[in-house]
This record gives sequence, C-alpha cells and structure tokens, in this order.
Amino acid sequence: MTAVVPSASMDDTPPDAYARAGVNLDARREFVEQLKKITKSRGNANVIGGVGGFGALYRLAGYRDPVLASSVDGVGTKIRIAEIMGRYGTVGQDLVNHCVNDILTTGAEPLFFLDYIGSSLLPDEIKLDVVRGLKVACDAHECELLGGETADMPDVYTAGDFDLVGFIVGVVERDAVIDGSKIREGDVLLGLPVTGLHTNGYSLVRRIFGIGVGGDRAADRAALETWYKELGSTLGDALLAVHRSYYHDLRPVLGRLRGIAHITGGGLIDNVPRILPDGLAATFDRHAWSVPAIFSLIQERGSVSDDDMYRTFNMGVGIVLAVAPDEAGAVASQIADSVRVGRVARQSGERRVIIE
Amino acid sequence: MTAVVPSASMDDTPPDAYARAGVNLDARREFVEQLKKITKSRGNANVIGGVGGFGALYRLAGYRDPVLASSVDGVGTKIRIAEIMGRYGTVGQDLVNHCVNDILTTGAEPLFFLDYIGSSLLPDEIKLDVVRGLKVACDAHECELLGGETADMPDVYTAGDFDLVGFIVGVVERDAVIDGSKIREGDVLLGLPVTGLHTNGYSLVRRIFGIGVGGDRAADRAALETWYKELGSTLGDALLAVHRSYYHDLRPVLGRLRGIAHITGGGLIDNVPRILPDGLAATFDRHAWSVPAIFSLIQERGSVSDDDMYRTFNMGVGIVLAVAPDEAGAVASQIADSVRVGRVARQSGERRVIIE
Repeated sequence: MTAVVPSASMDDTPPDAYARAGVNLDARREFVEQLKKITKSRGNANVIGGVGGFGALYRLAGYRDPVLASSVDGVGTKIRIAEIMGRYGTVGQDLVNHCVNDILTTGAEPLFFLDYIGSSLLPDEIKLDVVRGLKVACDAHECELLGGETADMPDVYTAGDFDLVGFIVGVVERDAVIDGSKIREGDVLLGLPVTGLHTNGYSLVRRIFGIGVGGDRAADRAALETWYKELGSTLGDALLAVHRSYYHDLRPVLGRLRGIAHITGGGLIDNVPRILPDGLAATFDRHAWSVPAIFSLIQERGSVSDDDMYRTFNMGVGIVLAVAPDEAGAVASQIADSVRVGRVARQSGERRVIIE
Repeated sequence: MTAVVPSASMDDTPPDAYARAGVNLDARREFVEQLKKITKSRGNANVIGGVGGFGALYRLAGYRDPVLASSVDGVGTKIRIAEIMGRYGTVGQDLVNHCVNDILTTGAEPLFFLDYIGSSLLPDEIKLDVVRGLKVACDAHECELLGGETADMPDVYTAGDFDLVGFIVGVVERDAVIDGSKIREGDVLLGLPVTGLHTNGYSLVRRIFGIGVGGDRAADRAALETWYKELGSTLGDALLAVHRSYYHDLRPVLGRLRGIAHITGGGLIDNVPRILPDGLAATFDRHAWSVPAIFSLIQERGSVSDDDMYRTFNMGVGIVLAVAPDEAGAVASQIADSVRVGRVARQSGERRVIIE
C-alpha cells in the first residue's frame, strides 16, 4: 500500500469512511479554519503558539506567589431555551460570565478559557455562533479563548442537541486569596442585582411552562414567544438574558472583601454557607431588594413555595459580598447598584441562611 | 414569609419543586459527600481548600519562568461502548491519560484536572464509578483531581446517556517547551505502541459492527461479548482497553526530544504535521511496527481502505517522537518499547505524511 494523503487539502477528498459514520474530517478542517478566525487573539504576549497544537500554552509572568483558580461549568438546560429560540449567540456569554464569577469569588482575575461543544449533526454555523458568544465575553474580560474541543458524537447526542462546557483558569496572589475565613459576626452582606435567572433553575421553569419537555416544537416556541406585560418582554427574551459578570464591578474593591458567594444552583440557601466560617450564619432581609418580575411569574404559574424559590433561584441577588461593618459604606459607594441585603450573625441551630 | 431552611440537612427535606423537575438537590448533596471521599487528595501542599468552594485553588510554586499547558477533551463515543457493557470504571482513565498525553507534547507535567459529567437520570453509582477511574489515573500521574461539575440535564440528555469532559492544566519551564520548531530534515521518528484504539475511531467501529447505532440493546451487548480468536479477547474488552499514558515513558528523555505528536483523531496523517516546521514531511515505514489485530479486524469487516484506516485510527502508534539522529539510539534505549517508525524528510508536493 501507499497511503499518501495530503493532510489539509480540501480539493482532493478521498472516499471517507469516517464521514459515513457521521464524522466528516474534511468538513471539520474547514470548520477549524473558521474557528481560528473567530477566536483570533487580540494580541496577548503571554500566549505561546496558536490553535492547532495539542496543548495550549500560556506564560505566567509577573506574579510573586501565584495561585491558580480554576472552574468548570455548563449553562444547564438554558441551552434548551436557546435551541428552541434558535438563538445561539448568547449562551457562550452566559458560560464565560458564569465561570468568571466562579473564580472571582477567590479574588482571581481570569487568564484563559477553553470550551467543549459535544453534539451530533449540529450545523457548523450554530457551533460558530456559540463560539462567537464565548469570544465576546472573553474579550470583555481580557481573558484568552485559548482552545477548545468540538466533539461529534453520533448516537450519544440526538441530532441537533448539544452540550456546552467551559473551563477557566485565573490567577490571584496568594496573600490576596479571598476565602471567607476572615468573615466575622456583624459583617455586612452586600448583594448585586441580576439580569434574570442567570444559568440556574431552567429545568424547573421548563416544567412549569411546559417548554422543551418532549412536547410539540411549535408549541414550545409559541410559549417562549408569548409577551408578558409584567416582564416587558417575551418569556424567551427574559429567559435568555445573559448571565451577568460581576468582574468589573468587584475588581476595584476586591482588597476590601472578606468573602464572595456566587449565587448559582441552590440559591442563597446553598451558596452563601460555602464561604461562612463555622458557627456563623447569614441573615437576609428579603425586603431589602426587589425580586425581579420573572421570579414572581414563575412562582405563581408553578405554585412554588417561597422556600423552594429561594433554594432554586437567585431571586434577584447574583453575588453576595461580605464586608466589615466599617468598610461597608466605602465598598457600597464604589459599586453603583450594590444593596445591603443582610448581615452575618452567630449561628443558632442548624440554619446557616435565614431569609426573613 | 419566613423561608428558613437548613442548608445541608438530609433529614428534614421540604417538598422540593426542583426534584420534580428531575434535579434533586438533596440527593445531590449526598452525592457530593461521596464524591469528596473518592476524590480526597493524597496530600499536596499546593492545593488550597477543598471541594465545595466556587473555584479550585492551586499554588504554583518553584518555577523560574512557568508556562501553563492546558487541554480539554472527551473520550468520543467510546462512552457508548462503556454504557452498553455497563463498565464505567475505565473511561475516566481514558480521559485523564488522553489529556496527560496532549499536554505532554509540549513537555509539560500535569498539575491538576477537572471533569464535567453531563447526564440525565444517570444513577449516582455510575457517576462515582467514572470519577473513581479519573482518580486512579490522576494519582498515577501525581495530578490533583481538583474539582468538577456533575450536571443534571433533563431533556438535553436522554435518560442514562451521558457525556464526560476533562480539562487538564500542567506546567513546563519556558526554555523547556517542546513545540517541534527544532525538528530538522533527517530526524528520526520513534513510535510507541498502543493498547488499542485509545479514544478515536469509535463511531466508525460502531457503524461497522452495528453497535449502539439505534438497534436492540441485547444485540449490541452480544456483539461486544463475541470472542475473537485473533484478539484473544471479546470485542468489547478490546474496545475498552485503556488509553495508554506515555508520561512515565517520556519523562526521562523529554530534554532530548524535538517534537512530540499524540496520535488521536485523524491518525498519523493529521496529527504529525501539527509539529512539523514548514517545508518538512514525515515518512513512515509501515513495516517497522506491527499493526494490532483489532485494526485488521475492523478493516476487514468494514472493507475500509488503507487510506481511511490511517487517517482515522492510530494503527498501533500512539505517540510519535522526533529526535536528532545522533540522539535516537540513546533515547530509544531509554524507552523499552519504542520503535523507529520513520524519519523527517524535505517536503515535496502537498504531502506532509507519507506512509509506505
């Protein structure tokens, strides 16, 4: 045999057995070229090499005692809403912003991001739309979109379905790590508002409104295109609102924060205890902030208890900051839309989060 | 309202709306406890904090001019074979070893790993089996299994299906980065043998043998349990053979290597050019190594051309090393099962990989 094949030629494609199996390697190369254009770095001296190598390289220079902060996440079944709406440009932003917030809780600034798109027979244009969203959000944080994997997985994903996973790496000086250990009784809890559900609670919402749960696609779409006066938008628009990044809000005050909790799945109830030292609890005054209309709509339609609402959704508070009482005023004045939402108290009983 | 809820109590579970939506937050907490046990660090002074924080922290100490190498990957539809066989303990090893090899191509040693398991109604015990595999392989590389995400995604994944994604970060001193740029005409190409398909070509194999392509589950299983004399095993056993890590083989000789190509999807034909400087090609002598029986079996059953075989499968060469001619003997003698598989030549025409 003389298996002589050009490695990147598009014009001389041999009969490709792998293409018959749902994985077309030539189309894949074309796709990779498109990807390269979209993800082209805006210039970062720390990035070594480009897309195409086996491992992405990032030089870590200029830190005294660097600690790497990393996180992996998806966007939950918000991805189903995007699919039904046929709008793929924002889930990438959701994912990056979610990951940025996750490592921001340690005080870290993002360095680079990698993505994974698993799918079967998902049109390349959709994948590229997703990646465009990733790139927009990475650029907004001067975070390098360093690489990724787009996996064609016939018989694992049903045609057109996909999952989207993001990995972020950031860095923080060791003596600047924020871990909640300095939180004390009496500390003030500041909260920042949300754009919507961010990336949590979508399975429950879809159940309540009967969207993407096995029914008719046209009906799914109609439900999402219904306009609600109280939302001032369609349900779909409200549900696709981009997960807010708190990076630029918090960056100027990071040195003054004792703890940061990103309010994701589990709501205030599950997420705030993750930063509280033993023996302390968080008390929230639920009248301190206004719960966005989308949550009232969900609660009413689904007859969901207050309790379940607060342990499933962010309920309008996307991130919680613990600040020493004598710093609270200064910090609050530097973050335009921050609100005093509660305080840290001594724990009595098993409860670590009290919403009253 | 007084929404007062213990954050981690298992014994006082309120009616949980989210559980009705397929996401049981209490069961999830129990699962996280199990996960913590399995992933417990063997002790690494560089790891700061434990599972549960929003971002995993890893101190990078002791490097002069560190470059971070990172990679994201899945195991392809090998995951379908694992599902049909009901054997979930090794795909985690496949994934870690694949990622380790990817960053090894830059000369990097692994630091830490994060995983993502997306699924719907996948039993916790299966997820834990997958994670046990991740842990085994991480430990074998002194790589910290730093965190992960297990996402319940009703209506995205069909019940029992899942995807597994891995993310690795390693480090290499800047002056020790291996990128192929020093490869010269006349360099020797060494290859190391494989355990099997590693993690590529599974969609084609499944098509050829009619496994996991929408047919009867019992028939799928029977096909995989068929014993083949030429394999000395069942087809399923051969297909689940764990992706080999080349880390410990290559580590002692990394300083002597000019280029390393991990042979994944696209085979020798697509992967070797990724490290070749412009104007150079790789010539392989296909008689230099023995192609494992599994590949002959696949080729025969599927009437696949040689050409397609070499651009889809590793064909028995899992990693290719480019070495200066006067170093080749010394390097080869330090890697027990390395084989001279080819050499670097001047490129003539479009072909960058010639297998003759």
